[in-house]
Amino acid sequence: MITCSHRLEVVAVPGVPLVEPGDDVPAIVQRALAGAGIATTDGDVLVVTSKLLSRAEGRFVDLARVEPSPAAIELARGVNKDPRAVELILRESASVSRQAPGVLVVRHRLGFVVANAGIDSSNAVPAGAPPGSGPWALLLPEAPDASAAAIRARVEGASGARVGVVITDSFGRPFRLGTVGVAIGVSGLPPLWDRRGEPDLFGRVLENTITALADQVAAVADLVAGQAAERRPLVLVRGLGFHPSDEGASALVRRAEEDLYA
Amino acid sequence: MITCSHRLEVVAVPGVPLVEPGDDVPAIVQRALAGAGIATTDGDVLVVTSKLLSRAEGRFVDLARVEPSPAAIELARGVNKDPRAVELILRESASVSRQAPGVLVVRHRLGFVVANAGIDSSNAVPAGAPPGSGPWALLLPEAPDASAAAIRARVEGASGARVGVVITDSFGRPFRLGTVGVAIGVSGLPPLWDRRGEPDLFGRVLENTITALADQVAAVADLVAGQAAERRPLVLVRGLGFHPSDEGASALVRRAEEDLYA
Repeated sequence: MITCSHRLEVVAVPGVPLVEPGDDVPAIVQRALAGAGIATTDGDVLVVTSKLLSRAEGRFVDLARVEPSPAAIELARGVNKDPRAVELILRESASVSRQAPGVLVVRHRLGFVVANAGIDSSNAVPAGAPPGSGPWALLLPEAPDASAAAIRARVEGASGARVGVVITDSFGRPFRLGTVGVAIGVSGLPPLWDRRGEPDLFGRVLENTITALADQVAAVADLVAGQAAERRPLVLVRGLGFHPSDEGASALVRRAEEDLYA
Repeated sequence: MITCSHRLEVVAVPGVPLVEPGDDVPAIVQRALAGAGIATTDGDVLVVTSKLLSRAEGRFVDLARVEPSPAAIELARGVNKDPRAVELILRESASVSRQAPGVLVVRHRLGFVVANAGIDSSNAVPAGAPPGSGPWALLLPEAPDASAAAIRARVEGASGARVGVVITDSFGRPFRLGTVGVAIGVSGLPPLWDRRGEPDLFGRVLENTITALADQVAAVADLVAGQAAERRPLVLVRGLGFHPSDEGASALVRRAEEDLYA
């Protein structure tokens, strides 16, 4: 059950350092909240960028050390990408969805469809990387639902409040230009808000009203998180009312056999 | 140029009546703002649901009066829909994107790809509809960019502030379950936020960072607008910083020939 909010506040939580491999993300989140004087309350949602988790998990890969397979070399030729990057993409993927010059869209091992398996090369240099190493790539986090649950447990333990946690990435889309924030890990917040069966203004039953709640939360957080340059990997969304849920982000993924486009 | 916000406020503006054909939407919006004591300031974005505009434009259609073409009858058989509804969908569309039992996805005449041409049948009864009439359908607004511009002109005229206006609908998506708010009309707010060329934390140039700003604004408004039952067709998003733009919602549409999925 979700109570639709009349008012939301969306705040970038300051004080999150640039994390490095091995850092304790739940502790960092809790410290940032405490440092900012934010007492979480029931229904707060904390939104954490995938990049922060990836860095903490040490998901850096030095492309110079990647040996592309013959299949990756062949595919790389078709899409005009670095064969080592394509090798990483294939390792992270269950299947290729679309390929074209400059474009490689896959179904990620976590289930969702995303360009380049969500691998990022724009901010990917680990601290202490030797001069001349790389280029570096940064893979998506290992298990975003579990990471969301760990952050949630830490924050709930400190505050006693029931909160939600969403791990986000920015995805491109078919049909539409520009990227939007999407949820790749969820804990506590219902990923989908199913309102089928509720009567509308005129007493008819709403037919087609399952809202991608966690994706919309990810989108609003993306508006204030900006890109990495802003260093705002932690956003608080306050004002949603919801009952705790145990569903993860896979609830948002349309299964391949039900997808007319995948 | 957009200044990424540290804090957003998102508020459902109360006092919007159920509109009927012929109602003056810009005046209704301005009256609701004034009635709620909201003085708009530079950078405010007003988000209006497409349904409010459609009702004001009298975009109701009584399916009993629709004569399906042979092509609509044939297509309706394949997708297991009412041939009259399919006829309306085809009239509103440039082409069919995908069809399957229960599913008809089209490229709308306005450019975007959407199920059922965005035609809604859940709330679509006009005031004064004779008993036994219908079933009724409600088409998307005629020209959402122009409607957004008219609302913007009215609000800016009353306040002197530079604002943005976004007209929204809820769309389903390939790959992912649940609907999200998207922008089908835009005025003032840049639909896309192009950050290519800005340096990241490490001085590298960001490569893939065009954000679908207006779609993300639509998503957050959808979180507070809820479905029609909530009667919250007007949402204020405060805290984004942007320079006025003259681009409409078509800036968000990927052209068919560049779309690997359409």
